Amino acid sequence: MVRAEIITIGDEILYGQILDTNTQWISLELDKIGIKTIRKSSVGDQDTEILAILEEAQHRADIVFITGGLGPTKDDLTKNVLAKFFDSDMDYHPQALEDVRVFFEKRGRELSDLNRDQALLPVKAQYIQNKQGTAPGMWFEEKGTIWVSMAGVPFEMKAMMEELVLPRVAQHFKTPTIVHKIVKVVGIGESYLSDMIQDWELSLPSHIKLAYLPSLGIVKLRLTGFGSEAKQIQQDIQREIDRVMPLIKGYVFGYEQDELSEVVGKLLIAQSANLAVAESCTGGYLSHLFTEIPGSSAYIVGGVISYANEVKMESLGVSSQILEQDGAVSEACIVAMAQGVREKLKSSVSLATSGIAGPDGGSEDKPVGTVWIALAHSGGVITRKLQLAGTRKQIIHMTALNCLNLLRKFLLNELTQ
Amino acid sequence: MVRAEIITIGDEILYGQILDTNTQWISLELDKIGIKTIRKSSVGDQDTEILAILEEAQHRADIVFITGGLGPTKDDLTKNVLAKFFDSDMDYHPQALEDVRVFFEKRGRELSDLNRDQALLPVKAQYIQNKQGTAPGMWFEEKGTIWVSMAGVPFEMKAMMEELVLPRVAQHFKTPTIVHKIVKVVGIGESYLSDMIQDWELSLPSHIKLAYLPSLGIVKLRLTGFGSEAKQIQQDIQREIDRVMPLIKGYVFGYEQDELSEVVGKLLIAQSANLAVAESCTGGYLSHLFTEIPGSSAYIVGGVISYANEVKMESLGVSSQILEQDGAVSEACIVAMAQGVREKLKSSVSLATSGIAGPDGGSEDKPVGTVWIALAHSGGVITRKLQLAGTRKQIIHMTALNCLNLLRKFLLNELTQ
Repeated sequence: MVRAEIITIGDEILYGQILDTNTQWISLELDKIGIKTIRKSSVGDQDTEILAILEEAQHRADIVFITGGLGPTKDDLTKNVLAKFFDSDMDYHPQALEDVRVFFEKRGRELSDLNRDQALLPVKAQYIQNKQGTAPGMWFEEKGTIWVSMAGVPFEMKAMMEELVLPRVAQHFKTPTIVHKIVKVVGIGESYLSDMIQDWELSLPSHIKLAYLPSLGIVKLRLTGFGSEAKQIQQDIQREIDRVMPLIKGYVFGYEQDELSEVVGKLLIAQSANLAVAESCTGGYLSHLFTEIPGSSAYIVGGVISYANEVKMESLGVSSQILEQDGAVSEACIVAMAQGVREKLKSSVSLATSGIAGPDGGSEDKPVGTVWIALAHSGGVITRKLQLAGTRKQIIHMTALNCLNLLRKFLLNELTQ
Repeated sequence: MVRAEIITIGDEILYGQILDTNTQWISLELDKIGIKTIRKSSVGDQDTEILAILEEAQHRADIVFITGGLGPTKDDLTKNVLAKFFDSDMDYHPQALEDVRVFFEKRGRELSDLNRDQALLPVKAQYIQNKQGTAPGMWFEEKGTIWVSMAGVPFEMKAMMEELVLPRVAQHFKTPTIVHKIVKVVGIGESYLSDMIQDWELSLPSHIKLAYLPSLGIVKLRLTGFGSEAKQIQQDIQREIDRVMPLIKGYVFGYEQDELSEVVGKLLIAQSANLAVAESCTGGYLSHLFTEIPGSSAYIVGGVISYANEVKMESLGVSSQILEQDGAVSEACIVAMAQGVREKLKSSVSLATSGIAGPDGGSEDKPVGTVWIALAHSGGVITRKLQLAGTRKQIIHMTALNCLNLLRKFLLNELTQ
């Protein structure tokens, strides 16, 4: 078993100014290729502290992942400390220099000396390109251990890991064959799901393991199979998925990297349908979930964000009578909103949201978390009343997920009412 | 300076199944009372690993905080390893036994042997009550160091820390005072900023330190002051901020936890202004940044997401001539969109976005990342052409930040054109 250690460098994580999400992500990725994380550490921007943890890690791990401390400013020490630790000179790396030059040129910005110095690397380092930023990654094979140093900005680190580092790590250590399959589930909590499938879970063969990876509103079931032949493991995993599917079919929306909004988008394309959205409490977030997906202009017509009642009336045709008698958070209003946006924007289907996201604005009748959603189509309007809990952001997120799932089940003809 | 170390015990955090938020919270709390975190570590449920980190921490820290591994099941080893490390017998602690009995009685549940054994503690431990759960906390003064062991469940740990542990720690150590101030900057990259203020940075007094905390489009400057009196340190930090402010004033949008959209919202309220938004390439994200802020309904009228050209024409009044001759990504179109949404939704100011977020849809004339933004007000329309780089999500995010900053500078009367 290959032993990995993950080190985060930077006062901002050590003192808690920012939450470290990198080490979790890295350990999950390592787990996928059969590498075991044995220690995670976080140290500050001080050369003695960084040297100390490098010295310790050397005796514990086969590979050490280091994030952070690679920025262009004075408080970023990682590069110099690594040079000292490996007893290496520093020099400009030609490819790194070219990459940082192109990075700034593309953005039409001047290359400062500080930025140029980002290409100054320990000569013992093998250069790892950072396509998302200006701090180069480094790979060392020194002192009997592999050392990988990467930028601390999460999207820069993830891009480097996925494209360059992980494939190289997998190649370097000849790890056993591991196959993962992720089944993505919406509309049911982790503990209910666990109760529902526990007999199946207990009956899994010993070379297939199950993990629950929950996030707000969505649970990922990750099946991991170990063996010697990928094809055989894939078949074994598929057989187990086929066995559990009858129990969870109504909740499964996709696999692997599928996003719920992307799955719904594909269903819209397949049915030559298009969508308009009327948002009150979600305030643009539901549209954003659709439009952040590449190619979504093929099926998203547009939307209306109707925060003010005047916009509900004038842009969506909600009557003043409804707003006065039932209020904006009501079934009558959500029906009018969904129908209104579908007619005005001439889409085949539409979604609408209206609710109280909080923290203020609740009443005894309609407490914070009371939300109406609706779906209008050529045959009528489907409504749902939700009672959600949590922060404003959580309520907005859960409202949008419920809309996406309502539309998904409608397009699959799986709605019972 | 009191030196603290934080250790998380448990496979689920080490392997990344759950995200560790405890250590961030603990380090922030320690920082408030002037205790410096020098190391954070995470180890798994293995006694050799736990013993190793305890041994190491002993030589580094004045106080060690340990979370996790205190549950009633077999894989929770912390208590036994601590007993071994301190060479201590185990015995039932009378108060702990009583507390766990009452905990179950209150919930009408049977006390199992497994639960009774939670009151079995190393006799060298001082008992720390866990009011939210059944795993007792422990305080040791051994080997020249203070050791605090707590449950890993966040709300249990936080309650113990706030009510019992932190007051005791503050009393035990007579610590220096630390004051932080964060200055938030938009519209300038970390390296340019660093160049701009480097003379000031080099001239900072030795008891005040500066850190750069960058994220996409925004940089936080954190000043940390050390001393004996909070008021004096605050004054010293403020003096330094006043010194640097003439250099960076145009970029500073807020302090501490301020969000850019929140700052803009406050400016709108102060000027009794309200806002409507017309979004093409940002697809709802700009509206979302405003509406996720509590109380935003006071100044957000609403918006139109005009993905399809028909929506640009019918909901925003963009002429077919503009769309045919100039295209949707053009100055003529963005002016019409901003004016259109301001008129139709009857707002005092409006923002509009139209661009190519990619990854497809670019051309030689208008490559991916070409974006027009506009601000319409009673006196006219202000436009900006942006040339952005990055992924679709990054281009969307940077477009929205540019809009927020354009409106901020307009409301502050700081726009030069």
